Amino acid sequence: MANKKVVLAYSGGLDTSVAIPWLKEQGWDVIAVCLDVGEGKDLEFIKNKALQVGAVESYMVDAKDEFAEEYALISLQAHTWYEQKYPLVSALSRPLISKKLVEIANQTNADAVAHGCTGKGNDQVRFEVSIKALNPDLEVLAPVREWGWSRDEEIEYAMKHNVPIPATLDSPFSIDQNLWGRANEAGVMEDPWVAPPEEAYGLTKAIENTPDTAEVVEIEFVAGKPVALNGEEMKLADLIQKLNAVAGEHGVGRIDHVENRLVGIKSREVYEIPGAKVLLTAHKELEDLTLVKEMAHFKPVIEKKLSEIIYEGLWFSPLRPALEAFLKETQQYVNGTVRVKLFKGHAIVEGRKSPNSLYNEKLATYSKEDMFNHNSAVGFIELWGLPTVVAAGVNKK
Amino acid sequence: MANKKVVLAYSGGLDTSVAIPWLKEQGWDVIAVCLDVGEGKDLEFIKNKALQVGAVESYMVDAKDEFAEEYALISLQAHTWYEQKYPLVSALSRPLISKKLVEIANQTNADAVAHGCTGKGNDQVRFEVSIKALNPDLEVLAPVREWGWSRDEEIEYAMKHNVPIPATLDSPFSIDQNLWGRANEAGVMEDPWVAPPEEAYGLTKAIENTPDTAEVVEIEFVAGKPVALNGEEMKLADLIQKLNAVAGEHGVGRIDHVENRLVGIKSREVYEIPGAKVLLTAHKELEDLTLVKEMAHFKPVIEKKLSEIIYEGLWFSPLRPALEAFLKETQQYVNGTVRVKLFKGHAIVEGRKSPNSLYNEKLATYSKEDMFNHNSAVGFIELWGLPTVVAAGVNKK
Amino acid sequence: MANKKVVLAYSGGLDTSVAIPWLKEQGWDVIAVCLDVGEGKDLEFIKNKALQVGAVESYMVDAKDEFAEEYALISLQAHTWYEQKYPLVSALSRPLISKKLVEIANQTNADAVAHGCTGKGNDQVRFEVSIKALNPDLEVLAPVREWGWSRDEEIEYAMKHNVPIPATLDSPFSIDQNLWGRANEAGVMEDPWVAPPEEAYGLTKAIENTPDTAEVVEIEFVAGKPVALNGEEMKLADLIQKLNAVAGEHGVGRIDHVENRLVGIKSREVYEIPGAKVLLTAHKELEDLTLVKEMAHFKPVIEKKLSEIIYEGLWFSPLRPALEAFLKETQQYVNGTVRVKLFKGHAIVEGRKSPNSLYNEKLATYSKEDMFNHNSAVGFIELWGLPTVVAAGVNKK
Amino acid sequence: MANKKVVLAYSGGLDTSVAIPWLKEQGWDVIAVCLDVGEGKDLEFIKNKALQVGAVESYMVDAKDEFAEEYALISLQAHTWYEQKYPLVSALSRPLISKKLVEIANQTNADAVAHGCTGKGNDQVRFEVSIKALNPDLEVLAPVREWGWSRDEEIEYAMKHNVPIPATLDSPFSIDQNLWGRANEAGVMEDPWVAPPEEAYGLTKAIENTPDTAEVVEIEFVAGKPVALNGEEMKLADLIQKLNAVAGEHGVGRIDHVENRLVGIKSREVYEIPGAKVLLTAHKELEDLTLVKEMAHFKPVIEKKLSEIIYEGLWFSPLRPALEAFLKETQQYVNGTVRVKLFKGHAIVEGRKSPNSLYNEKLATYSKEDMFNHNSAVGFIELWGLPTVVAAGVNKK
Repeated sequence: MANKKVVLAYSGGLDTSVAIPWLKEQGWDVIAVCLDVGEGKDLEFIKNKALQVGAVESYMVDAKDEFAEEYALISLQAHTWYEQKYPLVSALSRPLISKKLVEIANQTNADAVAHGCTGKGNDQVRFEVSIKALNPDLEVLAPVREWGWSRDEEIEYAMKHNVPIPATLDSPFSIDQNLWGRANEAGVMEDPWVAPPEEAYGLTKAIENTPDTAEVVEIEFVAGKPVALNGEEMKLADLIQKLNAVAGEHGVGRIDHVENRLVGIKSREVYEIPGAKVLLTAHKELEDLTLVKEMAHFKPVIEKKLSEIIYEGLWFSPLRPALEAFLKETQQYVNGTVRVKLFKGHAIVEGRKSPNSLYNEKLATYSKEDMFNHNSAVGFIELWGLPTVVAAGVNKK
Repeated sequence: MANKKVVLAYSGGLDTSVAIPWLKEQGWDVIAVCLDVGEGKDLEFIKNKALQVGAVESYMVDAKDEFAEEYALISLQAHTWYEQKYPLVSALSRPLISKKLVEIANQTNADAVAHGCTGKGNDQVRFEVSIKALNPDLEVLAPVREWGWSRDEEIEYAMKHNVPIPATLDSPFSIDQNLWGRANEAGVMEDPWVAPPEEAYGLTKAIENTPDTAEVVEIEFVAGKPVALNGEEMKLADLIQKLNAVAGEHGVGRIDHVENRLVGIKSREVYEIPGAKVLLTAHKELEDLTLVKEMAHFKPVIEKKLSEIIYEGLWFSPLRPALEAFLKETQQYVNGTVRVKLFKGHAIVEGRKSPNSLYNEKLATYSKEDMFNHNSAVGFIELWGLPTVVAAGVNKK
Repeated sequence: MANKKVVLAYSGGLDTSVAIPWLKEQGWDVIAVCLDVGEGKDLEFIKNKALQVGAVESYMVDAKDEFAEEYALISLQAHTWYEQKYPLVSALSRPLISKKLVEIANQTNADAVAHGCTGKGNDQVRFEVSIKALNPDLEVLAPVREWGWSRDEEIEYAMKHNVPIPATLDSPFSIDQNLWGRANEAGVMEDPWVAPPEEAYGLTKAIENTPDTAEVVEIEFVAGKPVALNGEEMKLADLIQKLNAVAGEHGVGRIDHVENRLVGIKSREVYEIPGAKVLLTAHKELEDLTLVKEMAHFKPVIEKKLSEIIYEGLWFSPLRPALEAFLKETQQYVNGTVRVKLFKGHAIVEGRKSPNSLYNEKLATYSKEDMFNHNSAVGFIELWGLPTVVAAGVNKK
Repeated sequence: MANKKVVLAYSGGLDTSVAIPWLKEQGWDVIAVCLDVGEGKDLEFIKNKALQVGAVESYMVDAKDEFAEEYALISLQAHTWYEQKYPLVSALSRPLISKKLVEIANQTNADAVAHGCTGKGNDQVRFEVSIKALNPDLEVLAPVREWGWSRDEEIEYAMKHNVPIPATLDSPFSIDQNLWGRANEAGVMEDPWVAPPEEAYGLTKAIENTPDTAEVVEIEFVAGKPVALNGEEMKLADLIQKLNAVAGEHGVGRIDHVENRLVGIKSREVYEIPGAKVLLTAHKELEDLTLVKEMAHFKPVIEKKLSEIIYEGLWFSPLRPALEAFLKETQQYVNGTVRVKLFKGHAIVEGRKSPNSLYNEKLATYSKEDMFNHNSAVGFIELWGLPTVVAAGVNKK
């Protein structure tokens, strides 16, 4: 009788490498899948490593464009600043990875999907809810959560099963990265009074080491999507990567966040989002110019909800496309160009222009060109303040 | 028969100086009131100037402490970032100034209150609604809005009535300032594609000119209120002013905002908030450490509403104290110390600690000390994802 | 030289009839437009009356279907209960009427549009903002607001200009009606301590006079739209009218509301919405069965905003289609049948069923069929309560 | 060595009666606690029954007043309509019961608290989170969830341990009741297409059987709290009970709800809330008269959040008192009298009056008394609609 098959989200690191012989011992044939969402790994090497440690099949999927166009773009347009600080990094890639894992599980008639998360993070929730939503018939395995080993026990098992021990094993950090940014936690950062050490960062220079000359970039948006950088059209994944490099050089986009996890604890995370920071800043400015007041004031309600459900692993809830339908309707106005100065860790918007600009110099000016009807203010103020004034009169008595 | 009396909010500038003889011509005795909310004016000079141009009485009111304790502190604790960008400056002082004007009107048995606003700004709304709420029997006059003169006509009138023409008359800018920050608009900034010129700024150095060495400050909070700077206790007004100086030196707190005014237009404003930026950043970090998740996630709803009603001139609506009652209840937890590095325009929180810290290293750690129950996650994920999974199953069919 | 042309929203009542000669005297050629949005008027008579009192042209527009499909349906799907009490009646027809007026103005090259509202209601705002949004070049006239006559002065003018005085002139009420309901105000109802008199109602029987036998109806919904009544398919306008009759007979849908107008005052209104009440109740029940929890809990936020902007005359704001995009995305799940008992003023939902039902008897049952995993609750509760428990522990000290 | 002690929430029903010998077998001394929150039980009988089936101690606590003043009153003032349908019944009593259990556990030096909930309801969450928040050192036991018996197995165990089998055992329903209402589920109601049978109801008459003559009651509120019924002052618990009787007689307050449980499933519940329905309706009407518009429009946001966290077992989260601080600040205005007609299942507000009424007949009237300034509307409309009109102009191009 044939073994049952499990599709494993394989990163090449120690945990998922050890998971391969461990799953084999439990009677599974392991199909390893390594996805590229822009973390800059050597995928060919990882693909082969999976086979070497015992996978029966090994897949490599380049999902950078899909990640940029359908996940990072939502984060950009919805300004998904979780707790007003962190625009989502891992939370965005998990549903896409889940989707790819389920697709391969369906193609290969696999019975289960496995991920390498522990029991205290958000990612286990994101993976399991996403996978179950996409195919409720698949079993979901979480070997690392299940075996519950100490690091020493894991190494002993790895050595016994000829799993190579990575050189970086004694790094105290736990890192996840994609096009949209890099997340890092653990080690000395577990004390929120201690500043993150310089080694915690991988995408950005310390401000102390950034150039003394600013770099000015122009970003062009069409329907809320960045389409050109400094006049050169390029696809979104490339544009983000390019901005990651240049903004990282200027130290843009470091975040140090004590955040509330879905599983009920606070954790301290360090993020780097050089390109995302530039794009989010520029996009907001273009919205400030082009969205009508009542839309500008309500959109944050949608943004907050979208940030929360994505963070909380509910990407595949029917609520997400409904929130996105609102979002997409607003983006038709977000056309134009934003000029951003990158300097000493800042992304400073210096100018913005748009064919949809609602800024009307004739109405705004204090010069002779003024066309605003100052007399209208009198009636406006009277009715605007009427409830407050009536209430004050009544309740003072 | 005696003249009727009007209490005028007097700044010493051209508009309100011209308003004095103009109001006199209309048959009013003018009582000038100059308030100090931390803009650093020579109040004695202004007080005398009012008398010189024709006021029958002239008052000087030092309202810095009241402004800090009852207005700026609300902005700080409620993170009142209007449109996610501007933490309110003028909008905070208008209700306090209105309150003082009405108090003096009541004391002097005045019949009216006058302000110097034009017909296209937010401040006219804030003044008029506030004054009417505090005393509906007072008439409100807006001479500048009423006369509708060009600059040239105003100067001609000033010269005819011996009103001194200020040397800064040809400044293109329109500035308002208090402890909490400085607002500037008009001139070349009326084109949102043009970067604000360096002359537009008054409280902060350009990043290019800031020191190459960082300055680290520690701020201590009790019940959400900053009580000590670098271990030295001081009252809030002093603490803000001290921070304005040191953070301004490091270029912290410049804002360039295309904003939606209450009167229906977009305008472009430049703000500087060096001290406020440091305090708002530090306070948020302390809340991240000390507020329970569901409070941290709901408080922004209160913050947004509070920001909007203050911006919109509804400080004296009964809604404001209700929102504040929520706010104050949350602040009892916000105790502790935040360490902030000021450098090249940044206020970077490097560390935070609190007796009310909900960050529990034993629950958060990835080390052997881990006390978090990883098995609980299995049941949690199952029920957390159940609605999404059921919905996916039903609607896929 | 030809007269300028104005398109007048003509109801056949005294105010708009008097407006015709009044506008003529001001030099306008009046094009009368009478719209049928389901108020059950004799349109042919009204059309002729306009010509008789001096209009140069007179149009009759049957807009019932458009009103049902594009306006009432939004109210239904979005549960637009303004202030949790009134599902919008006049507020829904004003934008449609404005649209038709502007279309005719464009076709006839008119220079202006006129409406018959006074200066203290919401409708003037709805008309003027809508008309200006649809064609900013049109002038908007409000003759009734402008002339400011007392009733006696108006009658005198009418008699002098051969405008027929309606027999109902001494009715104390001010009524507006369409497919979705009937609004009534003024007269003795201006005292909110007094119960509305029976004569105030026109569409519904008093409960005292309703049948002693209930009537049960079944309504079928497809994508949130009622498509059949008691198994008989019909278009929405007809279905609403049919329900108005049957539910009105059973006394369903009276509302007595002290509401906050946009212009700053409270007013007391009496509404009747027999059909709308039945449909809104049934639709909500079907959503309770078919919407996933997180969508069911967030949709009210959209509903509230949509209700408010429609009430406040902002139908043509870009925010409305964005809110509708969210709404429409949710309605794909709202398929099924609802059984409603009409009896003594009630519309009681007795049963609901749907192919998209997320109610799963196997998960919900307390019988032996139970498939819910009771053990999952333990882990769920532990993590769900963790923030509260940690906070309690920390802050108790 | 002495047994450990457990405080058991004891209802006198089969489940918690069986739990006593079961807990004893596990080595616990059981302290039974029976709380009266207004469900109308024979407490003395229940207290003795606990001892008879094996409890070492048995307490009876009359918590009706505390429940009315501190729990039901919050529901009333906050209009806690969970999912717009159900104003919370069991969800309100659980935190109070937990508080009493913990108090007795502390007094008796008990080691644990036990409740009789199964693993699929909301109440287990409410109990466990509340108990742990009040005393994290207490163990929480859930015998019914733990033993997982079928009904037959439970009866067999009961008979073996001399636990009396209640006569109502074959009732298909699962009922919880307190002052604020009665909840019922299970049996044929598990099919949401089937109307609840008449036997499912216990507090209200079917409309078919209600009197043909209406009853009119007047309720007086002080600071949002009902203090007198028909002019007779009484304490809240009594007032609610009195209203339950009279409104129940008129068939007021039946609810049939397919609701989203916290544990991820939909369930169908039938509620009866005769008194609560009358009070909630009257209170809302008084707020409509007395709250200023911006407060009336924002309070529902607080109400929704408060409803949700109470439903979800987070009564003891720090967020609840913060929401209540907002709430209490609003209630100072809610003074006055409401006249309600009870008839055929309806609680119809016929009139409301208040010393804090913001309804101003002089502003609202269409009679000659009108003092509203109709001309103010012109300026108001212009600025109110300006963003929409500007946006329409720009984006039409």
